[in-house]
Order: sequence, then structure tokens, then C-alpha cells
Amino acid sequence: MGLGVVGKAFLRLLMVEREDLYRKYGLDPSVVAVADSKTAAYNPLGLNIERLLEHKERVGSLEGYPDQIDLDTKSLIKEVEAEVLVEITPSNLTTGEPGLSHIKGALISGKHVITANKGPLAIEMPALVELFDHKGLRILFSGTVGGGTPFLKFVKKCLSGERIVSIRGVLNGTTNYILNRMEHGISFQDALKEAQEKGYAEADPTNDVDGWDSAAKLVILSNWAMDSGVTMSDVTVKGIRDVVLHRDLLKEGKTIRLIATSDDEGLRVQPEVLPRNDPLVVPDALNAVSFTAEISGRHTLVGKGAGGKETAAALIRDLVELKMYMRGGVGLC
Amino acid sequence: MGLGVVGKAFLRLLMVEREDLYRKYGLDPSVVAVADSKTAAYNPLGLNIERLLEHKERVGSLEGYPDQIDLDTKSLIKEVEAEVLVEITPSNLTTGEPGLSHIKGALISGKHVITANKGPLAIEMPALVELFDHKGLRILFSGTVGGGTPFLKFVKKCLSGERIVSIRGVLNGTTNYILNRMEHGISFQDALKEAQEKGYAEADPTNDVDGWDSAAKLVILSNWAMDSGVTMSDVTVKGIRDVVLHRDLLKEGKTIRLIATSDDEGLRVQPEVLPRNDPLVVPDALNAVSFTAEISGRHTLVGKGAGGKETAAALIRDLVELKMYMRGGVGLC
Repeated sequence: MGLGVVGKAFLRLLMVEREDLYRKYGLDPSVVAVADSKTAAYNPLGLNIERLLEHKERVGSLEGYPDQIDLDTKSLIKEVEAEVLVEITPSNLTTGEPGLSHIKGALISGKHVITANKGPLAIEMPALVELFDHKGLRILFSGTVGGGTPFLKFVKKCLSGERIVSIRGVLNGTTNYILNRMEHGISFQDALKEAQEKGYAEADPTNDVDGWDSAAKLVILSNWAMDSGVTMSDVTVKGIRDVVLHRDLLKEGKTIRLIATSDDEGLRVQPEVLPRNDPLVVPDALNAVSFTAEISGRHTLVGKGAGGKETAAALIRDLVELKMYMRGGVGLC
Repeated sequence: MGLGVVGKAFLRLLMVEREDLYRKYGLDPSVVAVADSKTAAYNPLGLNIERLLEHKERVGSLEGYPDQIDLDTKSLIKEVEAEVLVEITPSNLTTGEPGLSHIKGALISGKHVITANKGPLAIEMPALVELFDHKGLRILFSGTVGGGTPFLKFVKKCLSGERIVSIRGVLNGTTNYILNRMEHGISFQDALKEAQEKGYAEADPTNDVDGWDSAAKLVILSNWAMDSGVTMSDVTVKGIRDVVLHRDLLKEGKTIRLIATSDDEGLRVQPEVLPRNDPLVVPDALNAVSFTAEISGRHTLVGKGAGGKETAAALIRDLVELKMYMRGGVGLC
């Protein structure tokens, strides 16, 4: 579900990696259905991905493609025989739709889910995780936080056995880029325009600059690493529209970053003053997360937070993990 | 082998965690022999750790302890029946001794090894790893790099499947502390004195300030993550004694850090000029490593690089991993 930047990158990577996936993991996935925002294509024997992508590129949608099928997405998910739904429609952080309905449809028809869509998890993660568990199904979402930087995997695989007492992070690359530019005396508006020209920010920058994208990722991280059982409505959110970066502050060796925090006082996203040498003060559109573990203290991971190719790679990793799980019940993460 | 800061912290943590280790992992280790630099204690039924530590604290060595035994370490390792040798004598980065002989003794007498001693690995890691593999034994060394920060685990568990094309890191906390202080106009000598007073630097600071400690850790990281097959003699090493931090450099938004690099041009440790907002420019005595992976790009992990308690925790984690391995052949890392 979803054939935008990430969807296309995912299908492309699936082609490129096909041989490797088979050789290394015995994985030879067949894509039986694909839907974009207008229509869908279906072939129980497996779609020809190369031809499908070529059509999408040329026509702009799947309309007129030989395997096109007139079926709404809800029925498609229900009727199609498949092991896993890959849900990568755009994130809606208010309603979670259409991803939320897609994921519930998969749940009802007994399909595992792999998603890079933050919306459904931000809105209903605790319930979704419990329902999937209950039905013996898996929902995997490496790609929702950090793109190709394995924040979720890091805290689960490398800090296992320790209680995580707090999470603090720069979870949105666009705002980090803007705040970095503002350090050079550029206004918020001009920096935003730059970010849009560079392709970091979308035409409607609300989710980024008002903190909602950070909040959604914080919800996912906090549920994952601290078992918080929270949703978007539990986060206090303040964006960067009103931030002014005084030269005096910079002269004192400080700066401002949009920081998402989960600790024993709850969840919040807000601009905060930090020493410029704090590990969370990173340049460009990078992301950074500090996990503070009970015994071993603070660990900070820094990396690129987004990108179609990187997110697609995270989806492929989830696919491999799912295959391993289905085969032998090896621990997932 | 070894009852210094890390050795004592390890035995103490073993006592504190005993119940947890048994409950979670069915692990109930018996310490049958302990050696400090002067003598050893041995009891085939298991030593009383609490009483032994109390004696060591009071007397300064194991001399006069009821279970004391007059046996050189070589014979002790050979004669004692045990599953694993924990090697935590001081790191000698020139000869690897006495750790290297201890580890070879364990190999010959069929014991697994867990170590936080960088020396033996810096000198002979490729050969040691091959020999242990060949005999079906394991050598684990999480504690050699990064103390409680899981640099080794991160690259193996979170970036698996991707080729690592380069490693760049701040691997020595003492020099990082000194360079941070020098940014405030303090001379190298004064900053070194401060570091010694704070307990970061040893009385003989050669290994730290001349880059040898960084080089040893780089050898271990590079063999581990890039399968380089290298030893200390493959590293070009330059320390920070001659570093001068000009105010002009700082004004340009740059600074100097001691950077250890492994890439297709080989291994080197040297002071390098970096932009102050580079993720490797971290404050205090922190460590930081950037792993650049072929697909997902640069990932930087930042954390405390040392500490007796943290290193002891790494040894315990290795012990748990070893137990898991011995039980069912679960993949080690």
C-alpha cells in the first residue's frame, strides 16, 4: 500500500537485492498486489515489478496497467492471499488514516505488517501491538524512526537487560537543518525556504516545524524502549516557529535544538537551549538520540534520519527478520 | 587473572547480580581461582568472594589469605579445572604480557577467555581469534573498547549485512578531555595535570597522550568490523603532545581531536582538525565512533569510554553470552 518515494524505492531495492536475499536468507518474495493513491494492480502469480514501475513512472499512476484491478484498498487487503502487508502510505498524524484501516484490515485477515508509516503507530501503537501479539501476528516498523539509522534496533539489541530511564532526541531533520542555518543569522522563514528547496521540508511544513513529526517518533521510541503505553495525545508539543537565536546565546557556547524527551515526567517536544558541544547538537539534517540506561549511562546515536533509499533498506531488513521469525521463531526486534 | 580496579568491580558485580544471573539465565558461576600481581587464591569448591575482597582491601594483596596457593600463574591456569579464564591484568601494548601468556595458557588447557585487556589483542588478535576458533573455544572482549558503550556490539548487531567501509573515532577519553580543556586556553601540561587529578589519566600518560591506547582499540575495532587482520604494527601513530590550539582555528568554528581511522588507506591515529559541529567532536572524556556503512551511510555512537563498573558490566555480559553459546550454540557477537 503506497507507491510514493519510499514505495518505489522499496520495490526497486527488492529487485536489486533479489539474488542476495535468496542466497543469504532463502527469501524469494512475490509481490502479488500494489496500490497507489488512485488504483491498484493485482496478479496472484506475482506482478512484474520492473514493468509496473516503468508504467508508474510514465503514467504517474497504475491506471491503465494490464494487471489493474477495480477494488478498493479495504477489499484488496481482505481478499488478496498474502503473508505480509507493507504499509507505506503518507503519515497522517491526526487520524492515522488511511494506514490505520489498512493495518487493521491486515490484522483481521491474518497478515503480518511491515510499515514505515508513523501515523497509525502514533495514534494507536499500544492497542495495535497488543492485538497483533494476541493473534500471533507481527507488526514491524524499523523504518518509522530514523530512516536508515537503527535507533530502535540499537536500544533493543545493544542495551538489552538494562532499564532505559530516559530518551532525549533530535528526531526531525528538517527542523535541525533550519536551526543550524539560523545559527548563521538566517531567519526562520528563509531557512525554511532553503529546506524546502533542498527537499528536506514538504510544501506544508506543519508536521515538521510544529513538532508533530518529532512527537510521533517519540511515541514510537518511548513505547518501544520504555514500554510507556502512550499515544500522540500524551505528548506536550511546541514547535520552532517562534524561536529566536540571539547572538549572545551563541557567544556563550550555546544553541537551540528541537528536543523530544520521554522520562519519568512524561513526553514532550520543545525547543531547548543546549551547550553547543552536547552530543545532541548535530549539524545539517542529521538526527540524534540519547538513551540513558540505568547502569551504563548515556549512549547517543547519530545518523541520517530520513531518505527513500534508507527507509526502503529498513523495510527490507524487517522483511528478512519476519522471514526468520516465520521460519523458526527466532527473537524479533 | 588480575585484581585491580576492574577485577574488584567484576567480582563485586558478580555478587550483586548473582540472583539475577541465576533467575534470568540459569547462570551460577563459581570462582575457583583468583590471582593478583603477587600471588593467588584457589579453592576447587569455589572461593568466598566477599571474604576474599575484604582481605584484598585490608591487606592490599591476597598474601596470607586462607585459600592462598603458591603456584605461578602459568601453572595455575593450566592446572585449575575451569570453563573460562577472565583476563583483566593491566594492558601492555608493546608485549601484550602477562595477558598474552595467560590467554595462550587458557587456549592450551581448553578454556574459553573473557578479557578487557587490550594488549594481547592489539599484538596478536588475528592469530588468537583463529586459534580459538580452531579449537572450538571462544574469546570474548566487549570490555576492551568503549567500556560500557557497546561499540563492538553496535556494528555487529545493528549494521549487520552491510560492509563497513570506514571507521573513524575518538577512542581515548583522557586525550579528549585534555583537548577540550585546551579549547579554553589551558596549556597541554596543565590540562594533563587536571586529567591526572580527576583520575582520567594515569601517572605515566604515555599510552594515552601518545596515541597507543587509541591505536590498540582501533586494531580491535578494525579486525572486528572490517575483518582487517591487523595488529599494532600496522598503525601509524601520532599523539597530542605537540598540539597547539590557535584561537583563530576556534574562531573559524573548528577544533582538534585525536582521531583513529581505519579505511582503505590503512590504519592511523593522529590529531586532526574538525568542524566543531562534527558528531565526533564530543565534550569531556567521552568517546565517539563513526562507522560508515556501504548503504546506510555514517552512524556515530557516543558514550562513556571507560570506568571500572562499566567495564565489569561488559565482562558480565560476555559471561552471559558465553553461557548461552555453551548451552545451545546461539550466535555470539
